[in-house]
Amino acid sequence: MRILLIGANGTIGSAIATALGDRHEIVACGRHHGDYKVDISDPESIRRFFEQVGPFDALISAAGSARFKPLADLAENDFEFSLQNKLMGQANLVRIGERFISSPGSFTLTSGTLANNPMPGSAAVSMVNAGLNGFGRAAALELKDRDIRVNIVSPPWVSETLVAMGRDGSNGLPAATVAKAYADSVENPSVNGQILNAEDY
Amino acid sequence: MRILLIGANGTIGSAIATALGDRHEIVACGRHHGDYKVDISDPESIRRFFEQVGPFDALISAAGSARFKPLADLAENDFEFSLQNKLMGQANLVRIGERFISSPGSFTLTSGTLANNPMPGSAAVSMVNAGLNGFGRAAALELKDRDIRVNIVSPPWVSETLVAMGRDGSNGLPAATVAKAYADSVENPSVNGQILNAEDY
Repeated sequence: MRILLIGANGTIGSAIATALGDRHEIVACGRHHGDYKVDISDPESIRRFFEQVGPFDALISAAGSARFKPLADLAENDFEFSLQNKLMGQANLVRIGERFISSPGSFTLTSGTLANNPMPGSAAVSMVNAGLNGFGRAAALELKDRDIRVNIVSPPWVSETLVAMGRDGSNGLPAATVAKAYADSVENPSVNGQILNAEDY
Repeated sequence: MRILLIGANGTIGSAIATALGDRHEIVACGRHHGDYKVDISDPESIRRFFEQVGPFDALISAAGSARFKPLADLAENDFEFSLQNKLMGQANLVRIGERFISSPGSFTLTSGTLANNPMPGSAAVSMVNAGLNGFGRAAALELKDRDIRVNIVSPPWVSETLVAMGRDGSNGLPAATVAKAYADSVENPSVNGQILNAEDY
C-alpha cells in the first residue's frame, strides 16, 4: 500500500513509520518536515496537498494540537485554535481526502484518552478528542459503501512523551505499542468505525 | 432555586419548564423569546446576558443547532456553524457563566444520542454532541471544588419532534420524559460530570 503519514516526524508518527515501513510505501508528510508539506489547520493547504501527493491507499494522521490549560484560563481563541487544528484539521483530511483516496482505502486519525478520561486542564482537549471520536464513527458509516474505512486511534500518555516532559516514562505506553493500533486500522479490513484504544495492543 | 432556562420556547424547553416550574423560579431565556434574550453563538451576547440576568442557582440549556447533511454535502461553514452554535455556544454558557453562578450551583447542557449512535448525515451533529460530552465531563472536574456541577443530557429522538417532522412519534421519547433527566441533573446534588441518557428516565 501507499500510505500517507501526516505527522511522520513526531513521536507516534516515527513509531508508525517503523512499524509499517518494511511492508508498505510510507509517504512522510508534515507541516515542516517530510516529502510533502501540509498545514492541517488550513483546508486550502489540505486541498493542495491531495492534488500534489497523488493516489494513495491509506492516510494516517498522527498530527494535531489542542490547548491544555485550566478552564478559567482557556480563552475563546484557545478553543478556536484547538477546534481548527486537532479536530477540524483531521476531520478535513477525511472530508477532503475522500475524493482522492483509492478504494479500498482507509483513514486513521488520532484522538486520545482524555476524550473519556478527563483531568483538570483538559476541557478543550477532551472536547476535541471526543468530537473526533464522534465524527469518525459517523464518517465511517457514509464511506463504507465505497469500501473506505475510518478509524480513530485513542492513545494514552506515551512513554517517550512523558520522558521528554521530565516525567516517569513507565506511566505511559511505548510509542512502538501505540503504533500497533494504527497498523491494525490500516491492515485489517474488518476494523471500521472503531475507536481503537492503544492500550489494548 | 432560580433556574435560567435557555431555549425555554422549544419542545424540550417547554417540557422542562412544566416539570420544574411548580417548585422553582424558571427564568425563560432564548434567542427570540423569553424574559431575557441571548444568542449563544456570540460570546459577547452571553456576557451581556449574564450581566443582566442577575444571580442564579442553575442554568439549563436546551438550545443549540448543528447541521444534518450527508458528509459529501457538509461544507466548511456547516461545520463552523455547528461548532460555534451547539458546541461552543453551550460550552461558553459554562465557561463564562461560572463567574456568575451561585454556589452550590449546576449547569445542564444538551447533547444527543447521535454522539455515540451515528446515522448517515450526522457527521457534524455527532462531532458536536460527542465534543460536548467530552467538554462536560472535563469542566465538571474543575468546578466541583466550588460545588458547581456540570451534566449533559443526551436525548434520543423526541416524540413531538418526530410528529412535527411528519414521522411516527412512537419511535421517540415524549418530551415530558426527557425533561425528567434535566430535573435530576438540577435537583440531585450527587449527579455530577455525567452524560444522562434520557431513555433511562
